[in-house]
Amino acid sequence: MASHSSSTLFTSPSSFNLFSSHRLNPSPSYFTLHFPGPVKRPHFDLRCSVSIEKEVPETERPFTFLRDSDGDDTQSSSSSSVRARFETMIRAAQDKVCEAIEAVEGGPKFKEDVWSRPGGGGGISRVLQDGNVWEKAGVNVSVVYGVMPPEAYRAAKAATSEQKPGPVPFFAAGISSVLHPKNPFAPTLHFNYRYFETDAPKDVPGAPRQWWFGGGTDFTPAYIFEEDVKHFHSVQKQACDKFDPSFYPRFKKWCDDYFYIKHRDERRGLGGIFFDDLNDYDQEMLLSFATECASSVIPAYIPIVEKRKDTPFNEQHKAWQQLRRGRYVEFNLVYDRGTTFGLKTGGRIESILVSLPLSARWEYDNKPEEGTEEWKVLDACINPKEWL
Amino acid sequence: MASHSSSTLFTSPSSFNLFSSHRLNPSPSYFTLHFPGPVKRPHFDLRCSVSIEKEVPETERPFTFLRDSDGDDTQSSSSSSVRARFETMIRAAQDKVCEAIEAVEGGPKFKEDVWSRPGGGGGISRVLQDGNVWEKAGVNVSVVYGVMPPEAYRAAKAATSEQKPGPVPFFAAGISSVLHPKNPFAPTLHFNYRYFETDAPKDVPGAPRQWWFGGGTDFTPAYIFEEDVKHFHSVQKQACDKFDPSFYPRFKKWCDDYFYIKHRDERRGLGGIFFDDLNDYDQEMLLSFATECASSVIPAYIPIVEKRKDTPFNEQHKAWQQLRRGRYVEFNLVYDRGTTFGLKTGGRIESILVSLPLSARWEYDNKPEEGTEEWKVLDACINPKEWL
Repeated sequence: MASHSSSTLFTSPSSFNLFSSHRLNPSPSYFTLHFPGPVKRPHFDLRCSVSIEKEVPETERPFTFLRDSDGDDTQSSSSSSVRARFETMIRAAQDKVCEAIEAVEGGPKFKEDVWSRPGGGGGISRVLQDGNVWEKAGVNVSVVYGVMPPEAYRAAKAATSEQKPGPVPFFAAGISSVLHPKNPFAPTLHFNYRYFETDAPKDVPGAPRQWWFGGGTDFTPAYIFEEDVKHFHSVQKQACDKFDPSFYPRFKKWCDDYFYIKHRDERRGLGGIFFDDLNDYDQEMLLSFATECASSVIPAYIPIVEKRKDTPFNEQHKAWQQLRRGRYVEFNLVYDRGTTFGLKTGGRIESILVSLPLSARWEYDNKPEEGTEEWKVLDACINPKEWL
Repeated sequence: MASHSSSTLFTSPSSFNLFSSHRLNPSPSYFTLHFPGPVKRPHFDLRCSVSIEKEVPETERPFTFLRDSDGDDTQSSSSSSVRARFETMIRAAQDKVCEAIEAVEGGPKFKEDVWSRPGGGGGISRVLQDGNVWEKAGVNVSVVYGVMPPEAYRAAKAATSEQKPGPVPFFAAGISSVLHPKNPFAPTLHFNYRYFETDAPKDVPGAPRQWWFGGGTDFTPAYIFEEDVKHFHSVQKQACDKFDPSFYPRFKKWCDDYFYIKHRDERRGLGGIFFDDLNDYDQEMLLSFATECASSVIPAYIPIVEKRKDTPFNEQHKAWQQLRRGRYVEFNLVYDRGTTFGLKTGGRIESILVSLPLSARWEYDNKPEEGTEEWKVLDACINPKEWL
């Protein structure tokens, strides 16, 4: 992979994109933080400011993006902190997913951008565009140190204290990816896993350090092959069931609710799993769960692409895929929290918008005839199904 | 033109879209009204509710969408109200623009949707898709009667009274259009002209009836032909100069400021004129000015398309046009007041999104080489120029 001297940011191209630096301003600056869209639990549903440093391009991937002090966890019996293990996990997942994609591509390689911040944190963005199999594939990891306003800390945790704490330092790390294949019978995939920690607010005695996990994997075919949908969902369910039998039904519904294009009354695709603000289980268990989910991306998705990538198609199939990609664009630009936040705060645009397809289409009043293959997928986006 | 039995709404596909009915709810319902984006003057920059009726499809265009009582103006010396004359103007402009486009097309015709509301108001949407010359052309008119919350009335007019008036009935009418040609050397055009009136709030003695005009015409080429840009802007300037020498420079800058894609630090195109909340001139003068602007669309635009529609082009030219169309999508879905408002309030989606191109493209990190034709248009979008 070639390394390029441009910067990137903590980005989930399609479902999360937390903190970013202002590309026009070389000094630390303040941004508006606003998470619109459906939320299932108390959340950053307010406008607040986040202070963060300007990123610096790097020519090589560092061993870690963590601050020196973060490697060992003084608050845990583990030899290595959750922060450190989460970073290790997402970087390994990035490597494995990119290797799997390059193996299917058979030639074309990812382009890589590495960057860091002077006070700690950084990221690696990888993009493969106009390949043999994928028209655009983006796989990004990042680590961010920042300061969140006390309102965000309190809102996130539904704190009831009337004391006014000062700004709260936080840590965030995540992997995010959107993969758009060329063949209209091969589905688009998105996944994103992330971990947050705040410090304990120093000026509020007894207020705890907070942590939570978020993420999900969802897929978006233009045509339904029921065996593919069942395979995809069954791998998600297997990953969930290893931890809690309530996870799959709960996170499957959460996914259907989140990836909702309200103005169309349609989901953007056929779902998967999605969760956010998850902290009401054992922390080690949730770290293992996020790891399991990230590891499930390849077995859930790659076999489907292998099976469909060479399926013959005509112009009508391609036009329908492009129309569904138009919906993808609508969801990401209008509703997706990470994208809308990233755009408003001056994040690295090319990293944020790598989630958009290479091409998309909007026809006036396109209505597939009932019973057609196009109608079937639209119907499944309007009326989410239980696939298993 | 064929008439189709689907409904539409008061829509400016690209810069304004005021009030719409909820397509899922057959009874009058309440919507959130929020105009984000840059505003130059006191405005509806708040969330408030608008009550409006469900629309009904019509098989024929009515003579007028006005309520019976609105034809004559008891408050004016004119024989016909400003409301009535504005409706006549926009409907004539719609006919003329559609005729001009069909004349250039030489065969393909507009598809028409007509609708009304039981309590008064309605609209006509016309779309020509995948023609010989334009890939998508939408020209819509509408008339809306509604009730705005007192906060909107007060915010719009910067009222200082501490009295709390009740909801204020309003009238709005507008024409709006986006025209996307196929040939990458022929520019996209958008125009929109609209007129608002409120009643005098009955419970606040002395509070006046309010009215204002808004609108603009702007164009978006993928390649610069300086003679085309100069021609387009000079026709806008001529229309402005007939009324006030300050109009063109002021509205040209307002246009550059409004059609700004903040996250790219680019305008979506090469501007034109834009104004809003205009009421600080004689009302008759502003009605004539809006009429002149609408009449200038054909001479400003059609000769350019005639000249460029058959210019030979290659795949690279087309890809660049598609990339610029991606920017158009970004502006409309992320920033455009009318679009974002319409999407959030359950407007008729097909009418709102007729502004989007038939196809658009997003490449990772596309940067035209300095000095190329692609770079020149990007540079002009980043650094707005004085063309005259």
